[in-house]
Amino acid sequence: MTNHGGAGYRLGVAVVGAGYWGPNLIRNFSNSPTWDLHWVCDLDEERAHEAVGRHSTVRVTRSLETVLSDPLVDAVAIATPAATHYRIASACLSADKHLLVEKPLARSVEEGEMLVEEAERRGLTLMCDHTYCYTPPVRHVRRLIADGSIGQLQYLDSVRINLGLVQPDIDVFWDLAPHDLSILDFVLPEGCQPTSVSALGADPIGAGRTCVGYLTLPLLGGAIAHLHVNWLSPTKIRRTIIAGSQRMVVWDDLKPSQRLSMYDRGVDIPEGLAEDDRRKVEISYRIGDMVAPALPEREALQDVSAELFAAILEGRPPLTDGHSGLRILRILEAASRSVIAGGSPVSLEVPGLSVAAAS
Amino acid sequence: MTNHGGAGYRLGVAVVGAGYWGPNLIRNFSNSPTWDLHWVCDLDEERAHEAVGRHSTVRVTRSLETVLSDPLVDAVAIATPAATHYRIASACLSADKHLLVEKPLARSVEEGEMLVEEAERRGLTLMCDHTYCYTPPVRHVRRLIADGSIGQLQYLDSVRINLGLVQPDIDVFWDLAPHDLSILDFVLPEGCQPTSVSALGADPIGAGRTCVGYLTLPLLGGAIAHLHVNWLSPTKIRRTIIAGSQRMVVWDDLKPSQRLSMYDRGVDIPEGLAEDDRRKVEISYRIGDMVAPALPEREALQDVSAELFAAILEGRPPLTDGHSGLRILRILEAASRSVIAGGSPVSLEVPGLSVAAAS
Amino acid sequence: MTNHGGAGYRLGVAVVGAGYWGPNLIRNFSNSPTWDLHWVCDLDEERAHEAVGRHSTVRVTRSLETVLSDPLVDAVAIATPAATHYRIASACLSADKHLLVEKPLARSVEEGEMLVEEAERRGLTLMCDHTYCYTPPVRHVRRLIADGSIGQLQYLDSVRINLGLVQPDIDVFWDLAPHDLSILDFVLPEGCQPTSVSALGADPIGAGRTCVGYLTLPLLGGAIAHLHVNWLSPTKIRRTIIAGSQRMVVWDDLKPSQRLSMYDRGVDIPEGLAEDDRRKVEISYRIGDMVAPALPEREALQDVSAELFAAILEGRPPLTDGHSGLRILRILEAASRSVIAGGSPVSLEVPGLSVAAAS
Amino acid sequence: MTNHGGAGYRLGVAVVGAGYWGPNLIRNFSNSPTWDLHWVCDLDEERAHEAVGRHSTVRVTRSLETVLSDPLVDAVAIATPAATHYRIASACLSADKHLLVEKPLARSVEEGEMLVEEAERRGLTLMCDHTYCYTPPVRHVRRLIADGSIGQLQYLDSVRINLGLVQPDIDVFWDLAPHDLSILDFVLPEGCQPTSVSALGADPIGAGRTCVGYLTLPLLGGAIAHLHVNWLSPTKIRRTIIAGSQRMVVWDDLKPSQRLSMYDRGVDIPEGLAEDDRRKVEISYRIGDMVAPALPEREALQDVSAELFAAILEGRPPLTDGHSGLRILRILEAASRSVIAGGSPVSLEVPGLSVAAAS
Repeated sequence: MTNHGGAGYRLGVAVVGAGYWGPNLIRNFSNSPTWDLHWVCDLDEERAHEAVGRHSTVRVTRSLETVLSDPLVDAVAIATPAATHYRIASACLSADKHLLVEKPLARSVEEGEMLVEEAERRGLTLMCDHTYCYTPPVRHVRRLIADGSIGQLQYLDSVRINLGLVQPDIDVFWDLAPHDLSILDFVLPEGCQPTSVSALGADPIGAGRTCVGYLTLPLLGGAIAHLHVNWLSPTKIRRTIIAGSQRMVVWDDLKPSQRLSMYDRGVDIPEGLAEDDRRKVEISYRIGDMVAPALPEREALQDVSAELFAAILEGRPPLTDGHSGLRILRILEAASRSVIAGGSPVSLEVPGLSVAAAS
Repeated sequence: MTNHGGAGYRLGVAVVGAGYWGPNLIRNFSNSPTWDLHWVCDLDEERAHEAVGRHSTVRVTRSLETVLSDPLVDAVAIATPAATHYRIASACLSADKHLLVEKPLARSVEEGEMLVEEAERRGLTLMCDHTYCYTPPVRHVRRLIADGSIGQLQYLDSVRINLGLVQPDIDVFWDLAPHDLSILDFVLPEGCQPTSVSALGADPIGAGRTCVGYLTLPLLGGAIAHLHVNWLSPTKIRRTIIAGSQRMVVWDDLKPSQRLSMYDRGVDIPEGLAEDDRRKVEISYRIGDMVAPALPEREALQDVSAELFAAILEGRPPLTDGHSGLRILRILEAASRSVIAGGSPVSLEVPGLSVAAAS
Repeated sequence: MTNHGGAGYRLGVAVVGAGYWGPNLIRNFSNSPTWDLHWVCDLDEERAHEAVGRHSTVRVTRSLETVLSDPLVDAVAIATPAATHYRIASACLSADKHLLVEKPLARSVEEGEMLVEEAERRGLTLMCDHTYCYTPPVRHVRRLIADGSIGQLQYLDSVRINLGLVQPDIDVFWDLAPHDLSILDFVLPEGCQPTSVSALGADPIGAGRTCVGYLTLPLLGGAIAHLHVNWLSPTKIRRTIIAGSQRMVVWDDLKPSQRLSMYDRGVDIPEGLAEDDRRKVEISYRIGDMVAPALPEREALQDVSAELFAAILEGRPPLTDGHSGLRILRILEAASRSVIAGGSPVSLEVPGLSVAAAS
Repeated sequence: MTNHGGAGYRLGVAVVGAGYWGPNLIRNFSNSPTWDLHWVCDLDEERAHEAVGRHSTVRVTRSLETVLSDPLVDAVAIATPAATHYRIASACLSADKHLLVEKPLARSVEEGEMLVEEAERRGLTLMCDHTYCYTPPVRHVRRLIADGSIGQLQYLDSVRINLGLVQPDIDVFWDLAPHDLSILDFVLPEGCQPTSVSALGADPIGAGRTCVGYLTLPLLGGAIAHLHVNWLSPTKIRRTIIAGSQRMVVWDDLKPSQRLSMYDRGVDIPEGLAEDDRRKVEISYRIGDMVAPALPEREALQDVSAELFAAILEGRPPLTDGHSGLRILRILEAASRSVIAGGSPVSLEVPGLSVAAAS
């Protein structure tokens, strides 16, 4: 940590992993007003050089040890394959570095818990790079839920499909669902707490892992969340419906001019009607105006790096801390069990596999 | 049946039910070159009058018996609530009338089977009004599957959501899923034969029945079908992805200028690669052009009435016969069982409830 | 005019012309609560029969005299080719029938003026079927302008293009521009009063008349209107931007779920800035929320027939009276002159051709 | 020019102007495999520093002389306001630097001609940064015209509107139309050669210059081009229709998944029909499939810098050379004259103002 006089504190950072996501971290830390990017570390040094560019003074190395022994490095951002997160993050914590880790936090709940505990024991910040949580639309939805504008959550339906890369190490649930789960965890006041998880999928190309997946999560309080994640879709869709008792919101992330549409539509159930009577009447609808709020177009990673900086300086948990990462790992593990169980729901209240009883 | 000399045969028809869908049947039979519409029958005679219009010569009645005793009536089209289908259809068959029945065919597989058997015993045509099957996009997809253009089906994903009426008698699965199930049954060469059914849903407004539903159907041959049906969506979506080994098709029924988009995209797996090795390599993609075929804009119900006419005259089963209606009823019944079982898959190979064993 | 006792007055109507638009008039008058449709008249009697349908009691004839001599006929709706409007309308007025005339009102301003004068002399209603003016979006825009929500009109830009029929008798300006001109005339408090008209077009298929046309109208008060009308577009677009000093509205008529989008965006010019200084500063923008008002989905022709009925009964001019039709004819005539003049602006303030002087 | 042995030649470049567009040039030259970026020059040195980033070795200066006296600098890219282009470009040519100049090339045809002549006299490359010409969709359209797929051009209609910055020095024609004019110039085999120019516009905010503009260009051979450019649109549209006798293409640059749509639609005029008879028959249409070709997603500026490099090395004119810049300046100057003349067409065949005679 460096005090540049009147310019305020600055912190030093290194990025480990210069593959798919790393270059975005590198670019954002490079342009940050509070961070100094000192190192980019990758086993493929050529790739690291390319990521920093020909005219950069940022140093490149294959050696994690070199990075960790540099006292100018206050924090490390890890953007390597998920399977390596635990090993690298452990080494960083041992060297007393703060951490920003790509999703998913680790390969298992067990690994994740060890990292969270170790960070807490050492008083280090462990932040999950749940980038979507820092986008203007998701922040806006969070506010709408917090201030009651949406009312009681009724359902969340998310479609995140694309013709993407079939990952060699993880299935489509572990690859794409963390985005939606972290969003759900972020916008709900008490985080994402499903009572069970049902996961069904298909591997129609013989890839050896689910490529087309459906995840259903009954939530505490009666709402339901459903995710469609898919590497084999000819058309790219990133659309989430958040339906509440007061208002419904559609977030279409591929529509830059109108990412959020808030519908003042709802269901009219005559007041004073006993629940039993509701089943007999035809329910009518109130349809009001739609509002698309003006949202800033701003890169979320700028706010990720700012939040990491603030959390370290203030000694507080970041908005997307290790515990949010753990909640997501628990759902992903349950999803994997449900897939093996042919889609039977796996309870999240009792540890272990628990097929819901049929009546 | 009347032979108007050189003008060819014509048949007489009556429409029972002048509510939501009935007026469309009335309009189409009125304008048909082969049918004479003689009666519209509804318990609400005012509604029936309104449906035929002030200047019509078509007669209106509250009495089904009146309709059935008219020898000019060769066929009856039933567009009443599902719960009444069995009773009305039975009466029509007893009066030796051919039948066109709205979806779902009946309230249960048992009722449906009795109707199908009775129609066959009497040599009468029993046709299900699976209207979507007669639309140009669905006919086109059927051809693409039949001639191998799509290759082996990998998955079908359908979203049919809207801010619609909450039906007082049936849940959203029985209301909306028959559309997608009948389409699936129509385009697949051997009809829709899922090995099991998983249904999860929610009733967030306390309507007493599922209003937001997800249906997952593993199909014989390894493909998967998934349907999202929803009465409580702020945004209307009617989009189906049909993905095959050779080609992928997106059908967006709300995009009149481009309902079908055929993507010449697929997955390249190096030839000669053993299945075991596929799991180790990163799988790449071939991306080609997209073609939106020119489709006629033509009302499907015209073809429904023409098919009913031809099936009766030729004494052959219509394209969407009672057996297709039965296959759909079997899936809907299994879905209802799965909902009760908390989403556990219900096998369709063995009759009765069978929760898939967890490994 | 018939008084059905408690049911209120009803009027009788005949439709002349059963071609492209006639069937819509026939259907709407048939279902009207206030009109009785007695006749459909067309030189092609077969087409007229088809338009009323096999089961109708509405009479069909080739003879306009038969229609005009029927005392039950209070009004006639004319939906024949434009070239015949004057002759048919004159005959109707001579027989003391009220009139609804398709756009354009006539083939020339001269013809139109004679019709308007004759109707006024006889105290008959002459209404132009400017159908779009009766659609919910256009009515909404009219209200927004009337109540000041839009502020001072800055510009109106309309695109109405399609792969349509090349009309055999009129060019694309006379075929399509009346829609936009009638809308403009309807929403502006004082009607559409351009100071001049510039029309440029092309006939790239050698059809002998303009098939692709651009019309520019400087309006009194400094605003500008621009229309793009086109029979040869591969893609169908019906989009109008109405920009005002307070608010901007986009009307996309092919987007049923969001036909109107009202943007609370504007230009910030520092207050107290002299006009001369405005030219030196970079002007910034205020971007606010967008609102899509809930609009009823209702067929405009219902309101057309209701307005015709009310205007006759109340003895007042209809909202879209003959004078609005005349204002449009004046612009169309000026456009024809401008086309001949190679696009030079034709003044509308002084009668006759007046090419604006070049500086 | 440096020969790095086996690595091939490399050239040195400086970027002048770090405002709106400069940073894109800086980023692309930085990552180029053939260029070495040595300097960024801006009167606002802070802005230049920000543009290169904190960790860059690229030098920053306020002094153009410093840049021009560096022998490592082979070429200069100019991204300053249009009014300064002539002065800066002249200095660069005097220092024997090759040039890449932002659009528009200069403030007038006269200035542009002096630059083009000076560059030719000295044997230096003068390239216009008509970036859009290097995008995959425009390259594709150019091929389709060159190989006859589109047939004879019938019309080009372009809409480029947005809520953008009101430029302090130039009007909307000079700001936005160069994009479309350079595209038109690029895709037509003989460049853009209109016979006249009609320009109409409005300044509804009192900015002192046209903010909403319409440009109509009759082209040699009978086709027509029309551009709508607009700084005051609430909605962003970038859509061009290129209609030919064989095929029509819609380029929607805001639709990343389907930028180009090629319609196999056309007009059927019965063969053997004399031109005179065409005017009497109703012309019918042939509607075929639509194809959206797979296009690479690649940044156009990469190809701009590659083309500049290749043109210098091969001693040949670049694809978008100074003469294309001049053709565009001639049109812009004529447009300015037409605006002053109230929209009267200004001939481009005879120099000077020539208002087309009105008949």
